[in-house]
Parts: sequence; structure tokens; C-alpha cells
Amino acid sequence: MNKKTTEKINPQSNALNPPPHGGDVYEAILAGKPEPLDFSANISPLGLPEGVRRALAEHAPDYERYPDPHCRELKTALAERHGLPKDRIVCGAGSADLIFRIARALAPKDVLVTAPTFSEYERAAAEAGAVVKHYPLTYPDFVITEKFSDALKKRSSAFADYSDIVFICNPNNPTGILTPLEIITKILVACEDKGATLFIDECFMDLTDEPGDFTAEPLLAEHENLIILKAFTKTWAMAGLRLGYALCGSERTASMIAGTGPPWSVSAPAQVAGIQALKEKDYFERLRALIKEEREKLKTGLSDAGLEVLGGSANYIFFRLPQASQGKNLAANLAEKGILIRDCSNFNELDDGTYFRVAVKLPEENERLISAIRKAVNHAD
Amino acid sequence: MNKKTTEKINPQSNALNPPPHGGDVYEAILAGKPEPLDFSANISPLGLPEGVRRALAEHAPDYERYPDPHCRELKTALAERHGLPKDRIVCGAGSADLIFRIARALAPKDVLVTAPTFSEYERAAAEAGAVVKHYPLTYPDFVITEKFSDALKKRSSAFADYSDIVFICNPNNPTGILTPLEIITKILVACEDKGATLFIDECFMDLTDEPGDFTAEPLLAEHENLIILKAFTKTWAMAGLRLGYALCGSERTASMIAGTGPPWSVSAPAQVAGIQALKEKDYFERLRALIKEEREKLKTGLSDAGLEVLGGSANYIFFRLPQASQGKNLAANLAEKGILIRDCSNFNELDDGTYFRVAVKLPEENERLISAIRKAVNHAD
Repeated sequence: MNKKTTEKINPQSNALNPPPHGGDVYEAILAGKPEPLDFSANISPLGLPEGVRRALAEHAPDYERYPDPHCRELKTALAERHGLPKDRIVCGAGSADLIFRIARALAPKDVLVTAPTFSEYERAAAEAGAVVKHYPLTYPDFVITEKFSDALKKRSSAFADYSDIVFICNPNNPTGILTPLEIITKILVACEDKGATLFIDECFMDLTDEPGDFTAEPLLAEHENLIILKAFTKTWAMAGLRLGYALCGSERTASMIAGTGPPWSVSAPAQVAGIQALKEKDYFERLRALIKEEREKLKTGLSDAGLEVLGGSANYIFFRLPQASQGKNLAANLAEKGILIRDCSNFNELDDGTYFRVAVKLPEENERLISAIRKAVNHAD
Repeated sequence: MNKKTTEKINPQSNALNPPPHGGDVYEAILAGKPEPLDFSANISPLGLPEGVRRALAEHAPDYERYPDPHCRELKTALAERHGLPKDRIVCGAGSADLIFRIARALAPKDVLVTAPTFSEYERAAAEAGAVVKHYPLTYPDFVITEKFSDALKKRSSAFADYSDIVFICNPNNPTGILTPLEIITKILVACEDKGATLFIDECFMDLTDEPGDFTAEPLLAEHENLIILKAFTKTWAMAGLRLGYALCGSERTASMIAGTGPPWSVSAPAQVAGIQALKEKDYFERLRALIKEEREKLKTGLSDAGLEVLGGSANYIFFRLPQASQGKNLAANLAEKGILIRDCSNFNELDDGTYFRVAVKLPEENERLISAIRKAVNHAD
């Protein structure tokens, strides 16, 4: 089942250069160049909500104190939002911080990740000493089906006997493809039967059209082995502030994660911003409407430019260059024109240089992207 | 040499309640009570510098982006301040974050800490799987002497054969006692001879009177096995923002630490604040002058109140209640009057309830503390 024999991601090898995820516009900025138009990071194009900006400034006098190590006020607001007891919520300095703390807290021997998916699950598990196994999702559909839960249930493959944590990203990154709740439930039950934890990263769920039909939150009531990851980064355009949280199937799991790592992991500005962001309901609805409309226009534009759109149910679109296309080095070509897109070559299973991911941004920005891509694809490199 | 047979600090036991370090004023605030006068956290009493507050507000539009994962601009400023190549500096989300990342990056089997000292070294080492040994520093002087380096050099005691990292806090926390550079150098050489790393926490060094005579920074040029920890928290009153950094004896060590844990560990506001704080030279000098003057007045006041002042070379003072005193439960007594001080009972070697630590704050605040302590000590509980 696992086609990879070597790890593509080795924590040591990233020592000097942390893994490139997109969103690093600083090279240009520090060189005094104009800031690139960044489609490589999937962040709300509406910017930091005005109310959050105001709250950050008003609370500046509080930044001299240590932040609340227990994030009490923020967790109370999250508990209300998700209808979950406060003691089953853990806040962290961004979702990446929580991924690493969860891996350390659960100390898995073996974990299972899909390939491709967000690479930090694999880095975190490897750093915690786990062996990482890959379940390949392949062209052209990249979907997680019942085969996945069946394999876990029957222990029919090499990985199924061992995985202590199964990591699922829903919708998946970089593909933007959703896994139906029915399949998620089967995977969860299969994990439960063998004492494994199911970790579901729903950081982009809020920006899909029907989050209520796909979120695994209702399963938290009955399944102690479930952890759901959420982030503020994308929805409220606050990637710089570092704030994420985990919803846990049990209080015990939450307290294990909270007890891992240094105290005061969530900064005071992140707590202030999170508390205010949850009140910004108008911003949230405007963003969802914008993404829904622009996502479809962008997909159409990319298809019309001759690209194969493979997925995109949230605020990013995953596509492939046809093999015969003249558009190789697409990311480098666009970077020269001041536009950053995500070259997916460093994702498992996507290393042939033909896969890319772009964020859904404002109408005029998306049009600029399509126009630039059209030129790049239709002209020689 | 190691008098303790059981660990006083067990990471698991802290799961529900992270270790109390003082500075948690949120219980009162969230209960709608007036904010206590907090002498339990050693933070600059001058508050967040005005320039830092302005920079934080001006850069708010940048917070929507991911922060620079390499902290390039901040590291350039730190490299200049310390005369060290940029590639030997690692930034983290507060000094506690770096302590944990260093422990994970170096993966020690055994570590040596003094007792008492800041408890996060021990928590971080234990979380990284190390056995923690204690070198007791005892009443009344609590000093690190040549006996410490001799023991390491001769491998004459149980701990000396094993420690992969030796943790020294200079000045020590909670005692405020400095270790002379001559002793530090001997410890460093003894560590070097046996392939161990010497970690020196100098987070409070800037607030001592002669930091140039005590800092181990000059030793970085010649000793690859040295790591020095620094923080912004205390000097620039920005504990809520989470920013610290490590100066490393080698580029290799720095890159190992930087490659551990999630990317983007230092938030955008922390980077903005750090860059600006380094320019706030006037604030820095005013703070140093204030601390120098108030520290002596506070020491005199505490002595006059009948307490035994044991140490305090930075912005905090360590003292003991005489055994015969009526002032037991001093911290609880003061808390009832809205004043928080640090009860040192949960430090190793200080568990008899007679040791306390207080920060040096503004003149009128210090006077209020002395007056309250005088009343508490001279009246029955």
C-alpha cells in the first residue's frame, strides 16, 4: 500500500531552511522590491477584521503581562461556539504548534498520513519519534474512499496494524477535496476498534459551502479517540498572530496536550484577536459569500486557460498542467511577474512539477492571476 | 551529591494546571475584581515602551500574513547588538519555547540543573526524555562555586559522568545570585572536555549592575558547546508577546534548534516589537537606573521589616522569613490585600514555606509592598 520507501520529509534536513509552505513574501520585501501578489498562502483576502485591529490596539497595555496560560476567556467563547465543554478545548500558537504538541503528547510509534497532505503532520510525528506511513491518494481524483476505512478495519495492509494516529485533512491540503462524513465515521470507528486516535484537520472547513454537512464535530460527543483541529489563520486573516485550537473527544486528551510544551504558548495579542474574531459575524458571512462566488469564477478561468482543475472546495484551487503544455516552470514564471503560487512538487505523490495550488482572492486579483497564467501557459518558457 | 530521590516536577502532573510561576493575575481579573499589584512576575515596571506600542499598531496590516519563519530582520538587529553572526542566533516564542526546543534538538540522556532554579529546564528535559539530576545550592548563600566545576571535571560524583546538558541560570532565579565569569568559564571547559553543552540563561542579566563583567557572551567565540538564552520579556515589559532568543557557540547548534518544532514559531507582533525594542535605548537606561536605585531601597525595607534578604542582583529580591516569625502564609496574607508575591515553596530545596521572591517595581509600589509586609510579619495570621 505504501509506495514510498524513503521519507520525503526529514526534520533534520529542514534545519537550515524550514519547509516552504508558500506565504514567504519576505525575500522580496527585505530586498526592497514591491510586495508580491501572494496566491501561495490561503488566507482571507478581506484582511484583518477592523474590529480585531481595534481590539489589538486597545489591549496593548496588557501585553506587558504574561498571557493567560489557560486562555480562559478565549476558551469560554470557543466552548459556546462549538457547544463543547471548555475542558475539551486546547489553544495553541497556530495549528502547527498544536500538531507538534499533539504528536508529543500522544507519543505514537507509527502514524498514517495520506499522500499528498499538509507536511507538518509528518514532520511532527517524525520529531516525536514515530514511523510515518503513507496512504497514497492518486490522480485524477485524490479521494479518500471506503477502501481506506476497510483497510484499517481489516488490518489488511502493512500500515493498518500499527498506526497509533491517523491524520486526515478535511478538506485536504493541497487538493481541496472533501471526505464525506460517512467515510470519516467509518475511519473513526475503525481507529477506535484498534485503539488509535483519529486526527482531523478542519482548518479550512469554514470556507467550504456546506461545513455543517462535513465537519466531524457531532462525532466528538461519542468518540473519545477524535481530535479536530481548527485555526483562526485563514478565516480571519491573522496568520501573523499564531492562533489555533483543538477540539478533543475527551478531557483527558485535552489536558495531555495542554500539559505538553512551554506554558504561555498563546500570546496575549493572539488571545485578544481570537476573542474579538469570534464576534465578527458580518465579516465571516461576507468572506464566505466572496469565496463561494470567486472560487467558481477562478475555476472556470483556470479551465479556460487549458489547465486541469482537480479540486477546490474551500478557498484554494488545485490544478494540473497538461503534460503537453508549454507552461512548465509556471511558478517561477509567475514569480518573475510578482505573483506567487504554490508549486506542489514537495508534496508526496506530486513531485513531477505539474501540480499547483492557488488561493481564492479578491475579484481583480483573481483576474490578474488568470491573465498571467494564460500568458505563461500559452507562450514558451 | 543529589539529595533528591524523587522528581518534584513531573510533566504529566502539570497537565491540568501548568506550573505556577507567578504573574497569573487573570483569576482576579476574570472574577471582576481589581487587578492585583503583581510582585510575583519580574517584569519592567515602566510598561511597554511607547515606541513599541506605536510600532505594533502601525504594523497591524502585516499580521494577516504568515510571519517571517526565519525572523530575518530581527536577527540582523540582534547580530549587530551582540556582534555575532546571524546564523548563530535562534529566535523563539519566549525563552520557555527555546528551552523546550533546545532540549528536543539536543535530545540529552541526562541533564544537570541546580536546585533551586527556574523549573522549565527540568520540565523541558524530562519531556525530551532525559533523566534530571539536581545539584543543590543551599541556605544561606545558594552560590555556585568551584566545587561545581571540580565535580564535573573530576567526574567525581554520580551526575558528572552523565550530564549531556548543564543548565545554569545567571543570575539565578529565584535567588538573584550571580555566578562569576571565572566559575562559568571553568564549568564551560569541564563540559567541553566531556562533550556536554553548557546552557546559560541570562534573561535577567541586562538588569544587573555590571552585565559586562558577568555575561558569558565573550566565550561564544571560542566554545562551540555554549548556548546563552536571552529574553525581551523582562527588560521591555513584553511578556504577553512571547519573544526570546538563543546565542549559540556554533551555526550547527543554531540550525538544529531552529529546525525543531513548527515553522512560524515567532509571531509577527513579537518580531515587530523586538525590532523596535532594540532601538529603545533611552527606555533601557531609565529602567536600569530605576532598578538599581529601587532594588537597594527595597532590600533595606525588607531587612528593616525583619526579613532575611538572601539575594537580588537583578530586578527581583529573594528573602526568607525567620523561623520564629509570625509571618507564615505571607503570600496568602498579601494576596488578600491585593498584592501578589512569589511563594518559592514549589522550587527544589525551598519547600519549607519560608522563602519568597518579589519584583522590583516603581517607588510607590515598592513602598506599598514594604508597608503591607511589615504589617503581615508583625501581626499574627
